[in-house]
Amino acid sequence: MKLTRLISLAVALATTLGAAAKGTVRLQDYLQADSTSTVDAMPALRAALEDCARLRASELILPGGTLPLKPDGAFERYEYISNNDPSMKRIAFLLEGMKDFTVRGNGTRLLFSGFMSAFSLEGCERIRVENLSIDYERPFVSEGRIVAAGDGWFEFRFPDDYRVDLHDGSLRFRDAAGKTYPYSSLLEFDTERKEVAYHANDYWIWGQSYPAVKTAEGNWRLYRKDFGTAQIGNTMLFGATARWNPAFTLLDCAGFTLADVAINHCGGMGVIAQSSRDITLERVRVEPAEGSGRIVSISADATHFVNCKGAIRMIDCVFRNQKDDATNIHGWYMSIERRLADDRVLLRWRNSGQYGVRFLRPGMQIEVVDNRTMESYARVKIAQVRYLNAEYAEVRLAGRLPERVQPGHVVAEDGEYPDVEIRGCYIGNNRARGLLLGSRGRIVVEGCTFHTPGAAILFEGDGNYWYEQSGVRDVVIRDNVFDNCMYGSLNWGGGVIAVGSGIPEREGARYHRNIRVEGNTFRGFDERILYLYCVDGFTFRGNRIETTSDYPAYGDPDRRFVVEHCDNVVIER
Amino acid sequence: MKLTRLISLAVALATTLGAAAKGTVRLQDYLQADSTSTVDAMPALRAALEDCARLRASELILPGGTLPLKPDGAFERYEYISNNDPSMKRIAFLLEGMKDFTVRGNGTRLLFSGFMSAFSLEGCERIRVENLSIDYERPFVSEGRIVAAGDGWFEFRFPDDYRVDLHDGSLRFRDAAGKTYPYSSLLEFDTERKEVAYHANDYWIWGQSYPAVKTAEGNWRLYRKDFGTAQIGNTMLFGATARWNPAFTLLDCAGFTLADVAINHCGGMGVIAQSSRDITLERVRVEPAEGSGRIVSISADATHFVNCKGAIRMIDCVFRNQKDDATNIHGWYMSIERRLADDRVLLRWRNSGQYGVRFLRPGMQIEVVDNRTMESYARVKIAQVRYLNAEYAEVRLAGRLPERVQPGHVVAEDGEYPDVEIRGCYIGNNRARGLLLGSRGRIVVEGCTFHTPGAAILFEGDGNYWYEQSGVRDVVIRDNVFDNCMYGSLNWGGGVIAVGSGIPEREGARYHRNIRVEGNTFRGFDERILYLYCVDGFTFRGNRIETTSDYPAYGDPDRRFVVEHCDNVVIER
Repeated sequence: MKLTRLISLAVALATTLGAAAKGTVRLQDYLQADSTSTVDAMPALRAALEDCARLRASELILPGGTLPLKPDGAFERYEYISNNDPSMKRIAFLLEGMKDFTVRGNGTRLLFSGFMSAFSLEGCERIRVENLSIDYERPFVSEGRIVAAGDGWFEFRFPDDYRVDLHDGSLRFRDAAGKTYPYSSLLEFDTERKEVAYHANDYWIWGQSYPAVKTAEGNWRLYRKDFGTAQIGNTMLFGATARWNPAFTLLDCAGFTLADVAINHCGGMGVIAQSSRDITLERVRVEPAEGSGRIVSISADATHFVNCKGAIRMIDCVFRNQKDDATNIHGWYMSIERRLADDRVLLRWRNSGQYGVRFLRPGMQIEVVDNRTMESYARVKIAQVRYLNAEYAEVRLAGRLPERVQPGHVVAEDGEYPDVEIRGCYIGNNRARGLLLGSRGRIVVEGCTFHTPGAAILFEGDGNYWYEQSGVRDVVIRDNVFDNCMYGSLNWGGGVIAVGSGIPEREGARYHRNIRVEGNTFRGFDERILYLYCVDGFTFRGNRIETTSDYPAYGDPDRRFVVEHCDNVVIER
Repeated sequence: MKLTRLISLAVALATTLGAAAKGTVRLQDYLQADSTSTVDAMPALRAALEDCARLRASELILPGGTLPLKPDGAFERYEYISNNDPSMKRIAFLLEGMKDFTVRGNGTRLLFSGFMSAFSLEGCERIRVENLSIDYERPFVSEGRIVAAGDGWFEFRFPDDYRVDLHDGSLRFRDAAGKTYPYSSLLEFDTERKEVAYHANDYWIWGQSYPAVKTAEGNWRLYRKDFGTAQIGNTMLFGATARWNPAFTLLDCAGFTLADVAINHCGGMGVIAQSSRDITLERVRVEPAEGSGRIVSISADATHFVNCKGAIRMIDCVFRNQKDDATNIHGWYMSIERRLADDRVLLRWRNSGQYGVRFLRPGMQIEVVDNRTMESYARVKIAQVRYLNAEYAEVRLAGRLPERVQPGHVVAEDGEYPDVEIRGCYIGNNRARGLLLGSRGRIVVEGCTFHTPGAAILFEGDGNYWYEQSGVRDVVIRDNVFDNCMYGSLNWGGGVIAVGSGIPEREGARYHRNIRVEGNTFRGFDERILYLYCVDGFTFRGNRIETTSDYPAYGDPDRRFVVEHCDNVVIER
């Protein structure tokens, strides 16, 4: 921006107005008019995006090559994003209320520096983003090569550009701008296999700091009493404390396609969509950039869909090496705090990751659920909603509150649920699980390959811990390969296909229904294939089971198929 | 709220509508209709305040007695408040755009629990708040009695309700709800005198944690290498990390009177007003509640006025024992980041305590100032402002940018400045200084008593550190008693009346003008009475100087009146 901004704007305007017939805005014109854009393309991008909105352009064309993007000139707004962390955020592509718009990436590499989100869309319709990649100069997670280990200590070597120093006697990571990258967990990855190390557990750090010293060789030795064994040469992942900056945030959008996009890194989930419908991901690749030398891709789940409708499609995608699950599809439960009147109730978010979400609307039908059994015992209609703040909402119903309602019970929207199609995807090498499926629409998982360290497919949902609505109704898992899953922590699911719902009183509870597992191949070293409870209707048929010696054998052959508190289960071995 | 909310609302409506002729809303009616209001009066207060706004009531009458107020049902909004800390805040009295409205306290004690702000007013006109007190069940600062001290350690006893435990090996304070009260500084107070201990310095904690252990007697021993001597029996104040919850926040208000109000505690400044005009504080008492046993009152400055206009009056007030200065009156400097064109400039906030402030407006005249000398070398008019985010703004001027402009220079509004009258106040026993005077209007300080640990009256302002516009033009300091000031840290001002402006190049710089000090009494043990630089026009006449032995003598008699880089200075001893 050392060239006059005036000229920049004039050029931009002339260009875009001239092209208005086609509705095409070319970022290149804005970049050329701004001499500082080789250092930071954000001012040019912002001008181009503002023109796109003003001119109702149909497409923004990126120039190819690498675009450096810094937070200084970025858009800003406070965002509550479900299952991520609220904050005042800097955002590169902020799209509000836009319709029928495409970002053509042209193979552009968006290279961010510092704390900023890549794309945030609210109230948009029919948006397509294609052919680009997203990476960060300095990742929000930190990787240290394990060079030595002893009783209660590990010794690490960090990349030279990590700017490690001692703060409060412990390790601190900063970037060139002096920003600190806080961490709250450690997890060992197998450097050779590029996946979570065999049976590795998370070391959680709840605000503590563990003493560290720098060695004469320039390595860093970190002390913690419960540090056990670690493989020399493996990579310790220092997990980010907060999920401030997802790559793609969708709030109240309808129609979104992400095609041929690589999310090499971001500081939160890769794609997080809430209260949105009709979302397609085609050839989306969550994985470290080639040649980056990084083991871990993004800092949280690859994708996550909350209270979405219509269709969710993930076709030919790769969800690899991210710091959490590949996807989680569920609704929201708010907890009943207090009965205020025969038709009025005070609701409260009980999971702080849901604070600020405002999904209840007049006219919406909600189900009332016993949090002990997850039984949905009533349906009522909302007449009026009054949000008191990010945590509480007062709701007036169109009818009477059921007598059975008591504090602790939960409510969720009970209307349209999304149909889910996951096809041809590779899912693995990440932390924890693969697909967490919690929609009551039709779900098909077909032709995928799983190499997850925990459960490949998990049925979750509960009203006491995470407050996520689930309870599937129609699931087909067909023709997939489950390739040596379950090599990570034993806390990450009871089987390759498993139920994980937190249901305190399981006797008689039947939360999930109608799951068919057919024609799949289960290759593995771990006996734990199925772990089911509270399911009504489950068929396991025509699957091939192969034993490998790729990892140390694990598990009890008698507990290969665990089925408890279920009805109508057919398992054909 | 166990009684039906419906009944509550009906009663409230009937009451207020019935009284609408007088425009009086009585909180008592709302409290009576809500059976849970004895535990938390916030829902009733919120309903009453919403009715006040809807009915355009002229007054809200509080019932007297103690009102417990909790954050659960409080208003919420994100606030950037100058010189405090931005956050998503819970607020009890949120008044937006209200006019001609009085809160009659009736002696009510507002007793808050947890992180919430008492009053926040935006865009209001002619508001009066009278006859109430503000306190917090659990203060945001923590006080520990020093029971023992050794080489590199102090041992403390904390009140039983502090819920102290060890976290990360160091002290953590929590409340009954489990909320943590973080601290980032320590300062010793003299328990007997109820003031900062003699020459005590702040121990700053920048994110570190220092090891602690619990003793057999239930005391807590804290280790830190630079802990020197401390008086057994004195009180160590653990200062709050952030200023999230001021007592009174005024944003863009005109006409505000606070009368007969005690601010016994709050988690930020007592009164912070920005871009507001005509503010009167009468008999406002910032001090610990009687019988509370607390040494320290509020966690930051008693009052603070930024870019205000009209009149600021503080009459017969008490500003005692707060954790920072009694007042600070100044403007804002934004820093010039880059010249964008002949008439366009990119501005940046350089003090993060000013982030998010949007005071620049089209038509506003701004001065352009050399940050090295604080010379104001040009005046220009703003044609257009575009806020990029909380940190940056693009400004187009009505004319050309002066040639002399360069990055680092600063700009501030140069229009109306407030006249300031401070009369009959007691100011002392707090941390740091008394009055920081930075208005270019007429300032009169008369009939006050000062017992400040640092400078009683300080002329600040700079364009390199705090970015606060000052440069006084007309100050009268008359008939005050400066009673044993300067007993605290030697960092808190060079004299009882002093300049503290950060001016890197003082030669020839004359930032402050026309200060008269007449008819005052200076009683003290410390030789440092005047410390002046960069002043043009200063008269010290008819003052009485008495030496006391109330504290150990300090200072060089030859440096009683320090005058450097000044013109037109008359000192009559």
